[in-house]
Amino acid sequence: MNKEEIAEGFEGLQNEICAGLEQSDGKAIFREDQWERKEGGGGKTRIVSEGNIIEKGGVNFSKVYGPTPDKILKALGLEPADFFATGVSSVIHPINPWMPIIHMNVRYFKMSNGQEWFGGGIDLTPHYVVKEDARYFHTQVKKCCDNHDPHFYPKFKKWADDYFFIEHRHETRGIGGIFFDRLSPGQNLNRKQLNNFVCEVALTLPTIYSHFMEHYGKEPYGEDEKKWQLLRRGRYVEFNLIYDKGTKFGLDTGGRTESILMSLPPDAKWIYNYVSPGNSKEQQTINLLKKGIDWVSQ
Amino acid sequence: MNKEEIAEGFEGLQNEICAGLEQSDGKAIFREDQWERKEGGGGKTRIVSEGNIIEKGGVNFSKVYGPTPDKILKALGLEPADFFATGVSSVIHPINPWMPIIHMNVRYFKMSNGQEWFGGGIDLTPHYVVKEDARYFHTQVKKCCDNHDPHFYPKFKKWADDYFFIEHRHETRGIGGIFFDRLSPGQNLNRKQLNNFVCEVALTLPTIYSHFMEHYGKEPYGEDEKKWQLLRRGRYVEFNLIYDKGTKFGLDTGGRTESILMSLPPDAKWIYNYVSPGNSKEQQTINLLKKGIDWVSQ
Repeated sequence: MNKEEIAEGFEGLQNEICAGLEQSDGKAIFREDQWERKEGGGGKTRIVSEGNIIEKGGVNFSKVYGPTPDKILKALGLEPADFFATGVSSVIHPINPWMPIIHMNVRYFKMSNGQEWFGGGIDLTPHYVVKEDARYFHTQVKKCCDNHDPHFYPKFKKWADDYFFIEHRHETRGIGGIFFDRLSPGQNLNRKQLNNFVCEVALTLPTIYSHFMEHYGKEPYGEDEKKWQLLRRGRYVEFNLIYDKGTKFGLDTGGRTESILMSLPPDAKWIYNYVSPGNSKEQQTINLLKKGIDWVSQ
Repeated sequence: MNKEEIAEGFEGLQNEICAGLEQSDGKAIFREDQWERKEGGGGKTRIVSEGNIIEKGGVNFSKVYGPTPDKILKALGLEPADFFATGVSSVIHPINPWMPIIHMNVRYFKMSNGQEWFGGGIDLTPHYVVKEDARYFHTQVKKCCDNHDPHFYPKFKKWADDYFFIEHRHETRGIGGIFFDRLSPGQNLNRKQLNNFVCEVALTLPTIYSHFMEHYGKEPYGEDEKKWQLLRRGRYVEFNLIYDKGTKFGLDTGGRTESILMSLPPDAKWIYNYVSPGNSKEQQTINLLKKGIDWVSQ
């Protein structure tokens, strides 16, 4: 299994994820923009809007290569060499505030000097945290990890808690999930096995999101819930623009802005010093935006 | 004129700016939150919402001091010493899309080893760029600069063009204005004279904004203009969270999040790959979001 085959597999993931989401939504149709990178490679951005359940979302595939940009060399502490990188990313913002936002990314990076690794993860950002949904999500993700290495879930779950943290708000972006990087073929798992793992991570997205679409797609909601969703979308914007390394990296290295910023919600709201009443469902959600919660067995 | 007197003067500016804006709006009333900084000092955040013309805005005063945080030492290339910093900042988001967003900041920084400087600026972000308004704005700002030093305006205007630039969009945030930093007392102007300059900069805000409130506060607009305003507010969010040094610095050094992020608009919108028709007033605005335009004499 070489890098081209990995990229082909990722392209297949994009098709499968889009098909799964379209089917569950019933109305959403992804539209594709192909783009090329001057220095080598390019990608296919697939964007959906105005579905029955999905308000705005994207599933992106890219395969880029060439001399490694200086900013990447510096950020990753690498020696000058050519690079090859391929990945699939997805973010889905639902219409219904009871539905969660979902994000997934898997990527493979290979340097011409032989260094190579996989990275990625999947995480959930409910506007309202519902414990049984959080348990469902983490159980699915844990199962996917356990199929490949029993050490993965605990390690990558903690990594996600630390990564998806909005420092200046003292809260996590959502209920986390898994996050991993620099996973190189080695003693435990070879390249093909790691590739199988990340592909399975990517495919949990349509499975998990279809589950939530079925449960919450038609859930009634009112103005209060919509307003709360817009405020939480504001936090999502804050995380993505201030902390997310993929976003920063993409913009810094001259990636296609519209493909990178497809992760932003369709709209968002900021109210100065907004505080929810102490016993409200909004405050209960805030109370659960913490690191270190064992969602599987709570 | 010592540092405490400078801070007192800045506190006075806050009062004067709020009073001027309240008067022109006719309904807006600023509400104050006082906050303290554990390590020394604090501030007064004044926030307004739901005015006749102003939708959301703030005028903040702060005076903080103590051992210089490591992040500041590193960012500014300073030797360890105590610091004293005071400033006034304001951002106003109007209801009416024909009204511009305005931003102003003046600040004074003094180290216990004697180093000291002023910084600040004022800039305008119209949702629709109207050339005669841009000329009015820059003429006012130039006059203010010329009263103190004929070299200020050309130098600080260029600095603003470079600073208020959204790299990944290849566009300026708005029509710029002036931006300056590390302006130390010296040959030309002494501390008191520089203080007079920055105070005059600060007070151009209510003058200029009142002018626009009078002209555009009741201008009719429709859904298309409102949608465009929300998209432009999205760009404002992108600039403030990705590029603005004051925001980053404030959040990094544990400043009061709600005071810092009062600069964010009440709401914003993102549409994937949105392109305005070639001859639309929206596209005409985009065409003018460029560095280096001589607004005074165009």
